[in-house]
Parts: sequence; structure tokens; C-alpha cells
Amino acid sequence: MQAINVSIEVDKRLWAQDIAGSRAHAAMLARQGIISAEAAQEIDAGLQTIIGEIEAGTFPFRAEYEDIHMNVEARLRELIGATAGRLHTARSRNDQVATDFRLWVRDRVDYTIAQLRDLQKALVTRAEDYADALMPGFTHLQPAQPVTFGHHLMAYVEMFGRDATRFEDARKRMNENPLGSAALAGSPFNIDRHMTAEALGFDRPTANSLDGVSDRDFALESLSHAAICAGHLSRLAEEIVIWTTPQFGFIRLSDSFSTGSSIMPQKRNPDAAELVRAKTGRINGALIALTTVMKGLPLAYSKDMQEDKPPVFEAFESLDLALAAMTGMVRDLSANLERMKAAASSGFSTATDLADWLVRNLNMPFRDAHHVTGAAVKLAEGQGVDLSQLSLADLQKLEAGITEDVYSVLTPEASAASRLSYGGTSPVRVREQIQRWKEILA
Amino acid sequence: MQAINVSIEVDKRLWAQDIAGSRAHAAMLARQGIISAEAAQEIDAGLQTIIGEIEAGTFPFRAEYEDIHMNVEARLRELIGATAGRLHTARSRNDQVATDFRLWVRDRVDYTIAQLRDLQKALVTRAEDYADALMPGFTHLQPAQPVTFGHHLMAYVEMFGRDATRFEDARKRMNENPLGSAALAGSPFNIDRHMTAEALGFDRPTANSLDGVSDRDFALESLSHAAICAGHLSRLAEEIVIWTTPQFGFIRLSDSFSTGSSIMPQKRNPDAAELVRAKTGRINGALIALTTVMKGLPLAYSKDMQEDKPPVFEAFESLDLALAAMTGMVRDLSANLERMKAAASSGFSTATDLADWLVRNLNMPFRDAHHVTGAAVKLAEGQGVDLSQLSLADLQKLEAGITEDVYSVLTPEASAASRLSYGGTSPVRVREQIQRWKEILA
Amino acid sequence: MQAINVSIEVDKRLWAQDIAGSRAHAAMLARQGIISAEAAQEIDAGLQTIIGEIEAGTFPFRAEYEDIHMNVEARLRELIGATAGRLHTARSRNDQVATDFRLWVRDRVDYTIAQLRDLQKALVTRAEDYADALMPGFTHLQPAQPVTFGHHLMAYVEMFGRDATRFEDARKRMNENPLGSAALAGSPFNIDRHMTAEALGFDRPTANSLDGVSDRDFALESLSHAAICAGHLSRLAEEIVIWTTPQFGFIRLSDSFSTGSSIMPQKRNPDAAELVRAKTGRINGALIALTTVMKGLPLAYSKDMQEDKPPVFEAFESLDLALAAMTGMVRDLSANLERMKAAASSGFSTATDLADWLVRNLNMPFRDAHHVTGAAVKLAEGQGVDLSQLSLADLQKLEAGITEDVYSVLTPEASAASRLSYGGTSPVRVREQIQRWKEILA
Amino acid sequence: MQAINVSIEVDKRLWAQDIAGSRAHAAMLARQGIISAEAAQEIDAGLQTIIGEIEAGTFPFRAEYEDIHMNVEARLRELIGATAGRLHTARSRNDQVATDFRLWVRDRVDYTIAQLRDLQKALVTRAEDYADALMPGFTHLQPAQPVTFGHHLMAYVEMFGRDATRFEDARKRMNENPLGSAALAGSPFNIDRHMTAEALGFDRPTANSLDGVSDRDFALESLSHAAICAGHLSRLAEEIVIWTTPQFGFIRLSDSFSTGSSIMPQKRNPDAAELVRAKTGRINGALIALTTVMKGLPLAYSKDMQEDKPPVFEAFESLDLALAAMTGMVRDLSANLERMKAAASSGFSTATDLADWLVRNLNMPFRDAHHVTGAAVKLAEGQGVDLSQLSLADLQKLEAGITEDVYSVLTPEASAASRLSYGGTSPVRVREQIQRWKEILA
Repeated sequence: MQAINVSIEVDKRLWAQDIAGSRAHAAMLARQGIISAEAAQEIDAGLQTIIGEIEAGTFPFRAEYEDIHMNVEARLRELIGATAGRLHTARSRNDQVATDFRLWVRDRVDYTIAQLRDLQKALVTRAEDYADALMPGFTHLQPAQPVTFGHHLMAYVEMFGRDATRFEDARKRMNENPLGSAALAGSPFNIDRHMTAEALGFDRPTANSLDGVSDRDFALESLSHAAICAGHLSRLAEEIVIWTTPQFGFIRLSDSFSTGSSIMPQKRNPDAAELVRAKTGRINGALIALTTVMKGLPLAYSKDMQEDKPPVFEAFESLDLALAAMTGMVRDLSANLERMKAAASSGFSTATDLADWLVRNLNMPFRDAHHVTGAAVKLAEGQGVDLSQLSLADLQKLEAGITEDVYSVLTPEASAASRLSYGGTSPVRVREQIQRWKEILA
Repeated sequence: MQAINVSIEVDKRLWAQDIAGSRAHAAMLARQGIISAEAAQEIDAGLQTIIGEIEAGTFPFRAEYEDIHMNVEARLRELIGATAGRLHTARSRNDQVATDFRLWVRDRVDYTIAQLRDLQKALVTRAEDYADALMPGFTHLQPAQPVTFGHHLMAYVEMFGRDATRFEDARKRMNENPLGSAALAGSPFNIDRHMTAEALGFDRPTANSLDGVSDRDFALESLSHAAICAGHLSRLAEEIVIWTTPQFGFIRLSDSFSTGSSIMPQKRNPDAAELVRAKTGRINGALIALTTVMKGLPLAYSKDMQEDKPPVFEAFESLDLALAAMTGMVRDLSANLERMKAAASSGFSTATDLADWLVRNLNMPFRDAHHVTGAAVKLAEGQGVDLSQLSLADLQKLEAGITEDVYSVLTPEASAASRLSYGGTSPVRVREQIQRWKEILA
Repeated sequence: MQAINVSIEVDKRLWAQDIAGSRAHAAMLARQGIISAEAAQEIDAGLQTIIGEIEAGTFPFRAEYEDIHMNVEARLRELIGATAGRLHTARSRNDQVATDFRLWVRDRVDYTIAQLRDLQKALVTRAEDYADALMPGFTHLQPAQPVTFGHHLMAYVEMFGRDATRFEDARKRMNENPLGSAALAGSPFNIDRHMTAEALGFDRPTANSLDGVSDRDFALESLSHAAICAGHLSRLAEEIVIWTTPQFGFIRLSDSFSTGSSIMPQKRNPDAAELVRAKTGRINGALIALTTVMKGLPLAYSKDMQEDKPPVFEAFESLDLALAAMTGMVRDLSANLERMKAAASSGFSTATDLADWLVRNLNMPFRDAHHVTGAAVKLAEGQGVDLSQLSLADLQKLEAGITEDVYSVLTPEASAASRLSYGGTSPVRVREQIQRWKEILA
Repeated sequence: MQAINVSIEVDKRLWAQDIAGSRAHAAMLARQGIISAEAAQEIDAGLQTIIGEIEAGTFPFRAEYEDIHMNVEARLRELIGATAGRLHTARSRNDQVATDFRLWVRDRVDYTIAQLRDLQKALVTRAEDYADALMPGFTHLQPAQPVTFGHHLMAYVEMFGRDATRFEDARKRMNENPLGSAALAGSPFNIDRHMTAEALGFDRPTANSLDGVSDRDFALESLSHAAICAGHLSRLAEEIVIWTTPQFGFIRLSDSFSTGSSIMPQKRNPDAAELVRAKTGRINGALIALTTVMKGLPLAYSKDMQEDKPPVFEAFESLDLALAAMTGMVRDLSANLERMKAAASSGFSTATDLADWLVRNLNMPFRDAHHVTGAAVKLAEGQGVDLSQLSLADLQKLEAGITEDVYSVLTPEASAASRLSYGGTSPVRVREQIQRWKEILA
């Protein structure tokens, strides 16, 4: 029974939040005349001593006190005696733990947003390095149309940008103070929940005491956003794994982010990318763990909710490592521009450009333009050349209206440059987006 | 191969969005001079005919055209001939499907928010009916302290309110126009993506064409929010199942929301509540389905993404049914006030009130107050009475300082009324919250 | 990078399996003449020293050696010098880790089966205690028909029995030796994989070296079975939570398995049952974590697979606690036979017995029997009595053919006793099942 | 309410099982003398008429009868009148639906096993085609050591073989007859559950009536096995996607299993493989859906359990499509042997073979062998040649003991051929496994 009940090894991570909550509570109790100013001072001094002990590694965490709250409380009693008991006036374990955990999640969300911004900055920097670098844009992992590597990297800036705003929205929503909900019904003491809210950086107190102690939405929403973010990371990680194969050879990671073999020096295992990709599993698992725990729980507090913390701790630890590793890889990677450009040039990758040119310049219906293009590709295939290497005479045999101007779209450079629609891969547009993001991230 | 590839049975739900997107695209192409005004008019007339056919049930959905986009396109060609081919100028299946699906999700999110507001209104109305009705507040499903049924119902108003704002945030984030991203690289045509954005009610075009066609965050985020909302519904559903047992007997559902037995008239099975509770499974499953699909997909489009729609369709269909059923049950339920109050009165449920009174009035330390309270409970237990039925003399034997005033907190009514802290269960506070929500929901 | 790469804190749990694998490997290398007998002896002695160090708590686990395999290897080199290097002949990290992890899972599966058998024994014992104890059988949590508590407990014996056979099947399937698959292609050394298989208790070597290092089915299948088992535990845990409410009052847990309140002595929180119920979340999460990790991994080894261990360790730790706690609760619980029987008697719970009697004895069609029964229930309701308290005259007014014999089915005792079909709730049948299981579990 | 309650659109797939169960039940009732032989004959004739109607597509499925059971029952009454009512004697909706669903799952499990055996046969056939074909064995998607394509394909034969035995185990476990459990308590009629068990192909009746109606393990276990199988399919699908890129170019799929572009003829999108990969999502989602539904459900029947069928139907439909598509792809694919072999030869892929040769032949410690190998690789890299192209003189400068024999391991053919350990990639071993599997699958 004790084995299943004890949580100190897990929840001791909440110590800073637990003590911050207690200090705010004690100060409020004193200002409201519920405890004396002296008692509040003694309590505050004792809690500061405990902070010092924990930071110094001398605090005695004890399993017999089960959780972090009891450990702090028991130690406070050892330090200041019976006055310690006053701290629990107008407070319950239920609102205390809800407050501590919410503060912890809020702190991690802040940290995650900062990590996301760092990753975005790294991506923007590299996108600028590679704003003109041609690579194939893929569909079905088959080269489809030329894009720039900068454009590709900027796609991830958009994704991680959405992740950051998701966490920002979650933070706003969760930033309410459950302290003062007491066990579940609120308190008969004349407490001031707005005061503790302000002291703890909350925007306001929670509006319903039953909800205050039974709500774990802040954890669930944060896990959801972590899972979506992990999905983005897994996509880029997968690309890194594929791009670093000798078959692709698009990018290279330094020894800091790949591991080799003492006897196969050319083998560079993208371990960091694979681990980032794998963290998706942990984070999805954490999300399902908590949704499963919370399913069908009657109000207000059930012991099931003690199982809320491990998945959240694990998910954020995993996300932290994954974001840091990915930021490092993005900063570290170097592109093999020749391999990328060669891949962008092969496979008649500008066939759609030819078809579009015919539609645009000769006002051909799409279907006819496709027909002519198909014939041109066959011709080039037969000659063993690229579309841009077909002679004008040959092209005019297929369609008399074709002019010299067509060559302006048949190279991968020209193809990419022509895609000037908003959000398109033309370096002009990519640089505009880089500039826009630099300002946002400044 | 066709069996695994065909999606028309699933994606025909997108017909309205598909046609709206095409109409906006055609109008833009004409204004930009990419197709003629006449062509645009023919296309628009053809698409309106198709709308009519689908609404009339006469449209020929055909598996050989695989998906909704091809079905509409093929029918348009039958109706207006070769001009139909102009519609696909400067557009690709990839940005078309991304636009259609995003529009569909946005519409469902709007509908879900409306459903949530309806459910909140129903809860607020019933909370007002029961603002003074006493019931036990539970922890661990054990009665802990008296609360009011109105307060309990208002806890769910808070939950569903957070759900609504989550969907609102998601809606803002998703409300960007992928149309014009083309296959993945943007378009060489002089298209105006802001114009189609405005026509389709989007706030702006997406800023990166690769992201525009490969992003399914809007679906994932909506599923996450649906899962959290389903969790809230499952909690209330569980309570309804428990409360309608003869053992609890707290509430009664009419025949509209329970099923009976022809020979056991008193057996009222809360089928609707159980089905609501079960929908959590479907929606959690949908969330995991899509996170699994998207894990590790390289940019930009992979066929895997065709599997994005079934989980989203199923999840929103399930959520729709669950929200509607719950709103109906909330409107329908009637409380057995005597059973609830009796349960709130039993078990020395005001013991913490006595302890709090001792702390508050006699400035006793918590620990001593608990000691006295424990003794009073034992005394009452021995006399076979409730705490409020102990004589003042008896109480004073335990603690001389106790006065007549103590009885003002020893009944469940008094206990609830005394919890006046912000968000507390006191009817005064509950009515304030009811009023606040009435204004928000007006 | 190191932070994401280091796994020693997680995988040091594999130490015993790692050393067992190495000892078997060294012995085989020597017998095959690949290393000398002296080298093998030195290695074995060194490994035994390490076992002693780990058991004594003096082994220096070092993060710079990243994982358990490197830690053991490095320590062996410190202990016996260069000969340590011979151990890695004809072996790779890939088959080593596959072997270690498989051994660990196999051990835990064995332990889990033993725990399941213990739980079944506890249930059978209590079922015998309560083989005649009446309680309501529920559908929709509404009392439906009388059953015995023994019968109810035996339903769980069936569930946990299936769990045990599932784990047994998984054990047989996983019991193959991957050692000797080497990196992925097998070994050019003349190794004897059957010999190491036998030494490690495996039934045979794995038949394909690529599969040998890339397979994690044994972990996935074990997690699946753990999840199904956790589901069973959650059902019984939910029932315990409901049955210990004062409203139900069916069972009571002692202080060993519930926590109280110093001032509310009658409040007995079923913390252990709630924690058991919550463990379902952790275990479902672990299952999804690993299925997500393994999705779409190319052969043979990817670093993603390092993330296989945390979910498995956590799931089995959770299952271990949950099984132990549940076994304790089953042994501990005491039933309130009066409350149970009263609940079984109320609500005209023998109405179906009356209908069945009419069909059986008067050969009435079901529909007519239901009609008469409905009338009888209404009559009893009107008289404020139970069905068994209606006079024969009253019953005969409803249906002339009814005889005195009908009373033999109208009490809950009679109802339960009459359900003599195989697997039915009649105490006779329940005792047969108890006997059958006692023999199986002996 | 009706919208959430009606299930006929979902559960009408159970019609054959429902009628089979009813026919077995009626025959048993007659033999036991519970209904007359005439009644049983009428019922059976009516049910056969219904089979004919459903097969002919003329059966009137009606939403007002909610589910398949009521639809069949109502139609039977229309066909044969009041006698239809006799069919429900000694049976309840609860045991009827449990029986129907179990029969359906058992049938699908049988079909899935047959599909798995087909896929294995296809793989074995192709493995024989490619038993000598060299390709790189990958770790971290980086070429590591030469293997044969046949060996690689045989790895999947092992995986799908485990899948088949998992389903076989599940089939045995689920093959028990719940019919006769009645509502939950068993039946007072003198029914013979062994007779209906035999008629329906069950091995025995379920041993506890509460468990009989509340158990859904057969569905959960089948979903688990489906999820593991889907994971295997996703791995092979991922490899197909990667191998069909122009960068890898290892294999080619015909037009039956890839889609092209009218204007980019060389672009061959592996749509079928991507869809197979994506089905993992659906099946994982289905598994989580049902584990979530079943979590914490009290015995015996709750309406939540009506949500058991959609995930199972969807998962098996998805698995069916994925297995069929994968079997087709395996039969269809053709390998580009030159590309594969070239990739197997590059990157000093036989470096470990050199090291192993040094250990084996010169009895060098591993560490020293690695040192010499590293030097040889550097030398070859400098000369721009492969290891097998280094001169003996050059090699002897690095280690005097090296002899001509070393060349017998330095080519990829030699490397593969040397890996003769059981389960190794040597064609000799691969052909042994092919032979073994041919016998199993014959």
C-alpha cells in the first residue's frame, strides 16, 4: 500500500512551487488578520531556510512523509515548531497540490516557448544561408518541383510558430489561481484569493472551488500541444535521417550530432535525429495516459489524480531534450549544395513549369498543355537530355507558338524564381518571410 | 489497390467546401485576367448546378472518380465541357484538399462552440434552479463537505467554457488560406491569394506553400480539444450514472433519456449518459489515429494524409451526439432534493466547519482544533446524533470557549452558506457566478 | 546531445540480464574455440565480481559510459585488463541489447503470471466465503437480477485467468535467442547459437538475424496484455470505489487499504482502489508510446529503439503495484451482507423470474408472460410489498394458472438458486467453478 | 437520443452471426423440450427466409428497430407471427450480442490469418528470387554490412509469422460460447450450453455468466494483435517508400501499385505503400478507443459497450486492405539489382569483415583488429579504392600477418557468404529458412 501511495520521488520536482505557494498564502493570511504577523514571519523564515536546504542538497526528503507537501510541512515544524500548523489554515491538500502543479506546468510552458523561439531563430538563420539553394520539393518522397532549401526550412518556422502560439494560448487559459478553493467547497475564512493570485503571477482566482481542485485541463492541453510539436519535430527528424543517407547525401551533421564507427568512418549515424523522432512516442503516450486517468472521474478530487504528474514530467523532459537537440542539429547541419541541386534538376522536374508556360502564354487549356508537355518530356527522355536542353526547333515541332521565352522557366532556378505567389518558393518571397520572422522573433 | 485508394464515401462530406473553394478560385482567376470572365461565369453556373444536384440527391457520386474533387470536376466537364479544365489553372489537388478540409473543420469548430454555449446555458439555468439545493461534495466518491447542486453544475460551466475558448483559439489559428500553395511550391501565375482568402472567410493566406499543403495542425488541435471536452462530458456522464442508481437516488431522468424494462418499471437505465461516457473512447482513438499518421512524414504531401479525414469526421460526429445528448439530459434531469440533502447531512459532514470555527473564533492552532472536533464527533456518534444536535453543555465540556454561535456552522445549510470565499459554494457566491455567466452567454 | 543519448539511469535495471548474456556468450566462445578457456575463465570471474559489486551497491555506474552494456564492459576492463575485449568477439551491441531486454521482459512476464495466480487465489478464497451471499447483479449500474457475491468475484477469476494465459502465450513466442545475430547480418565466427540459447533458457535461436536485432514484438505484446489486464483491474477498482460509498455500503476496506480523516472517522477513502484504477492510464500510455516509436522504422536497428525501455519498465512497475494492491484489497475486504441482500431484494428484482416461471410452467409465450408480470409488479408497488409478498389469490386474479410453486422463484435466494445453467449464479454452480479453479491453481 | 442510440448502420454487419446464433439457440430449445419442435421449425424456416432476403438485398433494415437483433426479430414476427416470440426464451439481448460479436471477430481472425499466410507465401517466393541479391543491411538507415535482399524479405516472414500465431492464440482463447449467460445471471431454463457451443463451433461455454456478457477481451486482444501487425506493415511500407525514391532506386513498383503524373512519367508515387503505412494510425486509434471505453466499467453490461463495434470493424477493414495491398506490392515489386549491389559495395561495407578476419585468423584482440581496420580504410579512402582493391603489400604494411586469404571476405558477396551462423545472411542459410517456411506454409 505504501509502495503505491508514496509519490515523493516524483513530486519533489514541485518543491519551488510548493514553497512559493505557501509563502504567498502565509502573507495573505497575515494581511487578512487570520494569523498574526509574527506567525507569518516565522513561517516565511522557515520556508526560506528550507529553500536553502533544498538548493544545498541537505534537505531530508523522507518517504514516510509520502509527498513533497508533507515533507516541507514536517520540516517546517521541525524548524519553527507549532506555528508551522498555522500555515494550513484555510487551505487544503487539494487546492495546494492543484496550485503547485499548475505553477510548475506554467513555468515549463514558458520555458518551452523560449525553446521554440530559439529553434525558430536557428531555422531562420539557416534559411537565410540557403535562401537560394535549390533542392527538390517532394511529394510521396518523390521529387516533384524545385524549391529552395531556405523555403523548406521556413515551412518548419511556420510549424513551430503555431506551436508557440498554442502554448501561449494555453498559458493564458491556465493562469488562474486555485488556491483558496480549499478541500472543494471554498473557505469560511476571510481569505483574499486575488492577493495570492497576484503574488503567484496568476491573472485571477479560479471561479468555482469544485472546478479549482478537480481541473487538470492545463496539463491535458499542454500535453496535447507538446504532442503536436513532437509531431513537427519527428517530421524534420525523419528528413534529417533520410537526407544524411549516402543515397540522398543532401546534408551532413558534425560529430556533435552523429555517431560514427571506429572502422567505418563514412558511416555517420544520425542518432540525435532518431532520438528526437522517437520522443513522439513518449509524448503521445503521456497524453493518452492522462486522458485515460481523467476519463469518467466524478468531482471533486479522486486519488487517481495523483497519477497526473508522471506523464507531464516525462513529456516535458522529452520535449525539452528534443527541442534542444533539434536546435543544435539545425545550427550544425551543412548542406551539400551540389547534391541537392542535381536532385532538383533531374527527373524533368520543370515539366509543370512548361505546362504552366503554355497555359499562361498561349492560353492553352490545361489538358492540351499537359499533352504537349508529355510529348516534350518523351522527346527529352529519348535524347537523353533535360527539358531545358531541347532545341527551340524541337519544341516548336510540338507546338508552334512556343518561343525563346520558354527557357526562362525550364531550369530549376527559373522554376523556383517564377513561383512568386504569396508564400511561394521564389527566393524573393522566401526572403520576405525571413524578414517578417526576424522582426517577430527580435 | 482501388479499394485502398478510393475515398469518395468518406470525403463526399466535403462537397460544399470543395465547391465554395472552386467558386472563389474561379472568380479570382477571372479578376486577375488568368481566365476570361465568360469562362468564370460558365464555371460558376456549372458549380451552382452541381450544388443543386447534390442538395436534391441527384448528383451521381462515382467510385471510379475516387474522391469528391474528381467527382465534382468530372461532373462539371459533363455540364459545361472543356471550359471546366480552366478551373484547375494555378491550383493543385494538394492545395485544394487542404483548403476543403480546413474549411470543413472550421465549420465544425463553429458548430461545436455553439453547442458548448447551449450546454453551458442549460447548466446555468439548472444551476439557478438548484442554487440553494444541498448535496454532498465528494472526494474519493466519499461525502466530504456540503455543497450546493447549483455550485456543482457551475463547475461544469467552467469546464465547458474553457473548451469553448480552446476551440476559439484553434479557429483563429487555423483560419488561413492554403489555396494558392499549388502542388507545394506556389504558383507562377499572377494569382491573388488574399482575394480567395477573403472570399472564403480566411483571415490571411498561409505564409509558406510547403507548409500550406503539408499542415494538418488544424485537425490535430481540434481533435485534442475534442478529447479534452469529451473527458469533461465523461465526468458528468459518470456522475449521472452513479446518481441515478437507487442507492444514490440523487437525480431522475425522464423516459426521453433513459430506457426501462417492461417488467421492471423502477429500473431506469441511463443509456444516454453511458453512451456519452463511451464517446471518449472514439475521440481519444481519433486523436491517436491522426498523431500516428502524421508522425515522421517528410514534406510536403504524402498519401498517408488521405487518412486524416476519417478520424476527424468520426470524432466530430461523436462529439456532436455527445454534446446534444448531454444538453438534453441536463435540461431533463430532476433532482431528489430530500435524498441529496440527507446525504449532505450525514456522516458528520460539518466536522471541518467545527474545526474552522474553533480556529477562527478561539484562535486555536489547527492541530488542537482537530483534536476537539474529533472528540465532538465521537460524542455525537455515541449519542447517535449529528454534530448540530449536541448540547452546548456537552460541547463546552470538550472546550470551554465554545459558544452558542457554533451552531451557526454545524448544519449543512450553515456550512455551505459560510463558504463565502471567491468561488466558494455559498449560494451568494454561486448566484454571482450564475449572473456572470448569464452575461457572457447572453 | 549527451543528455538525449545517455540511458544508464534507465537501462541499469538490465544489469543481471546483461551479465547473464555475457557469461553465456563467453562460455560458448570458449567451447567453440573462438577464445581460449583461460580468457573465458578470466571474463567469467570478472563478471562475477561485478555481480558482487552491483549487489553490494559499490559498482560505479558512470554516465560517461552511457549505457549498462558499456558500464559493465568498462568495469570488466578495469578488473581483468585487455582480455575483456575478447568478450565482444562475434557479438554486437545490437544483439546484446536485444537479448538483455528480452530476458528482462521474460522475467517480468513470469513474475506477472505469478502475481496473477496469487490474485486469482485470493479471489477464489473470497468467492468461497461469499458463495451464497446475495447481491444485485447490475446492468447500467442499475440492479437487474440477484446474483451471489461469490459469483461476481469468480467473474474476475475468469478475466485474470485469461490474462495469465495471454502472458504465457507471449512468453512462449518471445522465448527465442537473438544473441548471435551480431550487428544485423549474423556472424562469420563459428558460433553456436543453440548453446547460448540453452544457457539462457531460450527455446531456440531466432531464425533471421535482421529480425533478431530489429524485433520488439515481445515488448509490444507484453504491453498489450498488460493493458488488457489493467483494464480488468480498473473495473474491479471502480466497483470497490462505488461499493465503499456510504450510499452503497456493500463492502468495507480496513485501514490498510483506505485512508481516513482525523475528524471524519466515517470517511474511508479507497485510495488504493483509485490508484489501481489510475494505473490503466500509465499502461495504456506505455503501449501507445512503443507502438508510436516502432511505427515505420526501417530495418534493422534505429536509435529510436533505445526508447523501447522506459515505457516497458514503467508499465510493468505500474502493473506490479496494481496487482499487489488489488490482491491485498481482495484479501482485506469484508462484505456487509445485509446491505447487499437488501439491495438484491429491492426493486422487484425477481420480476424476470416470475416471467420465466410463467413461460416454463404455463407454456406462455414470452410476450404474454411479460404482460402478466408487469401487472403483478404494479400490484405489488400499489400494496407497497415485494413480489414474494403478494397473495396467491392476487396472483391468480392476474393469471389463473399460477400455483403455490411460484413462490419458489420469487425471493432473491430462490432466484439465484434457480439459475442452474452452466456458468450460472446458482451457488451450486459457483461452487463447482470454485472447485475447478482450485485445482487449476493448486 | 435516438441518434445516439441507434446502431443498425454499424451492427448490421453482424447479421449472419446473429441468425446463426438464433438457429442454434432454437434447435437447442427444442431438443431440451423448452419449445416445441414445430415452433423450432417455424423459427428456423423464418430465419432462412431472412437470410435469403438479406443476401438478395431485399431485407428491410429499419432504424426504428435500432439494432440488428431487433431488426431480425421484428422481421421474424412479420414472417411467422407470435411463434417468433418463443425464440427469445432463455436468452437475453446481452448474451445474444456477446455471442454475435464474438463470432464475427472469430471469423475475421480466421480471415486475417489466411491473409497473413498469403503475404508470407508471397514474401518467401520473392525471397527465393532474391536469395543471392546483395543489398546493404542498414542501421540508422546508413549502410552497415552487406546482406541479401532475400534475407531482408525473410525478416518480414518471421514478423508476419508471429502475427499469425498471435491471432491463433487469440482465437483459441476467445472460442467460448457466451450464449446462455442470459442477462447476466444464467438461466433457470434447462438449457444445454454445450450443444449451442458445438453448433456454433465454440470449444466450450463460458464458465461465468457475468463474465460471459461483460467480457470484451476477444475484441481487445484482436485489436492489439492487429496493431502489432500494422506496425510490421508500416516498416515494410516505409522501406518501399524509401527504396522507390530515385535516390535509392532499389525497387520499382508497376502502375498497379503506384500512381504517376501525366507529365512526369518518371515520377512513380508509391501511394499504396503510403496508405498501408497510414493504416497504422487507424488501428492504433481503434485499440485506444476500445481500451478507453472499457476502462472502469462495472459489471455486467453497460451501454458503453455498444461502442465496442465501430473500432473493431474499422480496424479489421483497415488491416484487410493493408494486408491485401502489401501482398500485391510484394508480388509486384522488381528489384534493381545493380543499384542494390552498388550500394552494398560502397562505404567500406566490409570493414567489419576485415576486423573479424584479423581476430579469427591472427587471434588479435578486437581492439587491435579495429585499429588495423581503421588504418586500412583510411588507406583505401586515400587511394580512392575499395577495401578489396588494396594490394596485399599495402595491407601487410599495416599488419604483417595478413595473407591472400583476406580477400575472401572483402567483397560484399564474400562478406554475405561468410555469415553462416544460424539465422545469418549467407545465401546457404537464407535458403534453409526459405525451405523451412515453405514446409510450414504448404
